Amino acid sequence: MQRAAAAAVRALRGARVPPGRARVPPGWARSAAARAPPRGLLYGRHGEPAAVLQLKDLEVAKLGDSDVHIKMLAAPINPADINMIQGTYAILSELPAVGGNEGVGQVVKVGSCVTSMKPGDWVIPADAGLGTWRTEAVFPEETLLRVPGDIPVLCAATLSVNPCTAYRMLADFETLRPGDSVIQNAANSGVGQAVIQIAKAFGIRTINVVRDRPDLPKLVERLMSLGADHVITEEMLRKPDMKDLFKSIPKPRLALNCVGGKSTTEMLRHLQPKGTMVTYGGMAKQPVMVPVSAFIFKDVKLRGFWMTQWKKDQMHNKDSLKSMVESLCELVRKGQLTAPACTEVPLEDYRTALEASMKPFTSSKQILIL
Amino acid sequence: MQRAAAAAVRALRGARVPPGRARVPPGWARSAAARAPPRGLLYGRHGEPAAVLQLKDLEVAKLGDSDVHIKMLAAPINPADINMIQGTYAILSELPAVGGNEGVGQVVKVGSCVTSMKPGDWVIPADAGLGTWRTEAVFPEETLLRVPGDIPVLCAATLSVNPCTAYRMLADFETLRPGDSVIQNAANSGVGQAVIQIAKAFGIRTINVVRDRPDLPKLVERLMSLGADHVITEEMLRKPDMKDLFKSIPKPRLALNCVGGKSTTEMLRHLQPKGTMVTYGGMAKQPVMVPVSAFIFKDVKLRGFWMTQWKKDQMHNKDSLKSMVESLCELVRKGQLTAPACTEVPLEDYRTALEASMKPFTSSKQILIL
Repeated sequence: MQRAAAAAVRALRGARVPPGRARVPPGWARSAAARAPPRGLLYGRHGEPAAVLQLKDLEVAKLGDSDVHIKMLAAPINPADINMIQGTYAILSELPAVGGNEGVGQVVKVGSCVTSMKPGDWVIPADAGLGTWRTEAVFPEETLLRVPGDIPVLCAATLSVNPCTAYRMLADFETLRPGDSVIQNAANSGVGQAVIQIAKAFGIRTINVVRDRPDLPKLVERLMSLGADHVITEEMLRKPDMKDLFKSIPKPRLALNCVGGKSTTEMLRHLQPKGTMVTYGGMAKQPVMVPVSAFIFKDVKLRGFWMTQWKKDQMHNKDSLKSMVESLCELVRKGQLTAPACTEVPLEDYRTALEASMKPFTSSKQILIL
Repeated sequence: MQRAAAAAVRALRGARVPPGRARVPPGWARSAAARAPPRGLLYGRHGEPAAVLQLKDLEVAKLGDSDVHIKMLAAPINPADINMIQGTYAILSELPAVGGNEGVGQVVKVGSCVTSMKPGDWVIPADAGLGTWRTEAVFPEETLLRVPGDIPVLCAATLSVNPCTAYRMLADFETLRPGDSVIQNAANSGVGQAVIQIAKAFGIRTINVVRDRPDLPKLVERLMSLGADHVITEEMLRKPDMKDLFKSIPKPRLALNCVGGKSTTEMLRHLQPKGTMVTYGGMAKQPVMVPVSAFIFKDVKLRGFWMTQWKKDQMHNKDSLKSMVESLCELVRKGQLTAPACTEVPLEDYRTALEASMKPFTSSKQILIL
């Protein structure tokens, strides 16, 4: 994160010169003379994104020996991006900052010491805090990771947070075998949809909890088409009928929690003895409540997961990150992992995209096209 | 537990013959002709202990090849014993049953295949549910464990639950090194006092949370004399002054929770990132509440511990159990582990003992002398 923050600050150096004027580096200026100047969504203070974000011309930092100059292709708006701008997230960028933590870019030029990527390659962030809502940037090689260019651009743009979170939670907490089951709430979220697809690809069955809503049958159909074994509402989770469900599917050894509050306590009740619940979000803004007996007599384990921290821990050895990204891209190629429902929005229309991304029950991820 | 339950049922076979009449096996009858007939505290239905327990003459089962005939010396009244009689515990004995799960006995006679103990040895239960509130019994060898006869009888009688729970929780969840710290609530409980002493012996510092009470200074003094580094009330736990405490002692890597509710949430706040909280009791009868952020951003781990289950898991290989008991006896010999404050009560006065054991703020463990 320190490295990413420093890179973001360096990339932003120009933001402190009079706005509207970009000091485009000579090399880039020559080859892209006809192009629009580099721009990005910048915030100088924390607050509501629509109020504090401004689309400004940005300077692109000088390319150092270990740096990579990229043109961004697409970058999604994720809930954590919103919270970082609001100033409520666990990590905050030094201000002024460019918004966005995820996305895909194409390499334009590399520094003389860069070995892992070359012009034309697609790259995604290997760390949070880079600021991806911009048209181009210079970042240190180590903050980026090459991805194959043969997957859809929207898949690449949304690969480094949600599918990676889903992959790690399925891999790192319980040794799941084909036929085992996993239960998750917020199953319609980006992570939720990735969990359904990755689990399906590995023969693991999923019980998916969603909030009741007017278009429930449509949602159920969509999640089933992704590979969900069961889709139930939070109300159904509390009913004795759940017993019937467990006649055809084993009790889950892993529960993935993105909600908190009562919903989570109910989900936990169905976990196998000695099973693990992993919390990675708290949409209900309520604590996780666990009956003492679940710990003592059922020996359940409660853990947490944060992709940002995981990536930070891999900064000096990216083998696990690379092998995960390769596996995920392989699933994409096989059609087993698709991008979530997306709405592509030109950078100029970022206010519309921000507004849409903050609506409750939103099912479509807003992707800025850069 | 199946084995222990079967043993308890066998040992009780006589309880179904007219009460007050004991069918004493011939061998025992000869050598103990002058002694009172075997007696025990029996319950035929679940309910309040004082109402359902009756002191009755009991038959001692015939000694099988793999059995051990013991004369009980002393047996404590623990909270779990009360809950089992009330019918509210996670495991219940087949009725009618003899109360009590812990205690020390002396071997009178062994079956022809018994190798691990001989007449005169002291033994403690290796499993829950044996029914220790009786003067003598025949149990299978595998449900008992030999202990050295050179430790105080009250130490031996109270060794198999609380000190073992404390030992395992300190050993099995975090790799603690001298200088590390542990925080625990209900620090005045039997387990709490054992945690203080065992931690002290291994150079681990303890922060001990107790409820405020009229004789607080006396309690603080007693826990400090056992080796506590800090004794604080639940109110102090919530105050900003806690910062000062952590100037002289590192934040705990392990929290031991026997309470639940708000007290536990407060305790959790002081845990080191990536630390573990182990829940082994729920005195407040409230769930454990954990802010989602503690899981995601602090990566705390929540686990549970139940000595009964641990022992059950060791049934086929008692090496860990034996080595733990040896370590604990060594601490006893060195004066580093003492029995909790005890009140010795003759078996006949069991109602007084039960009543005293169920009083709030009780600091003295009731021990039936058999």
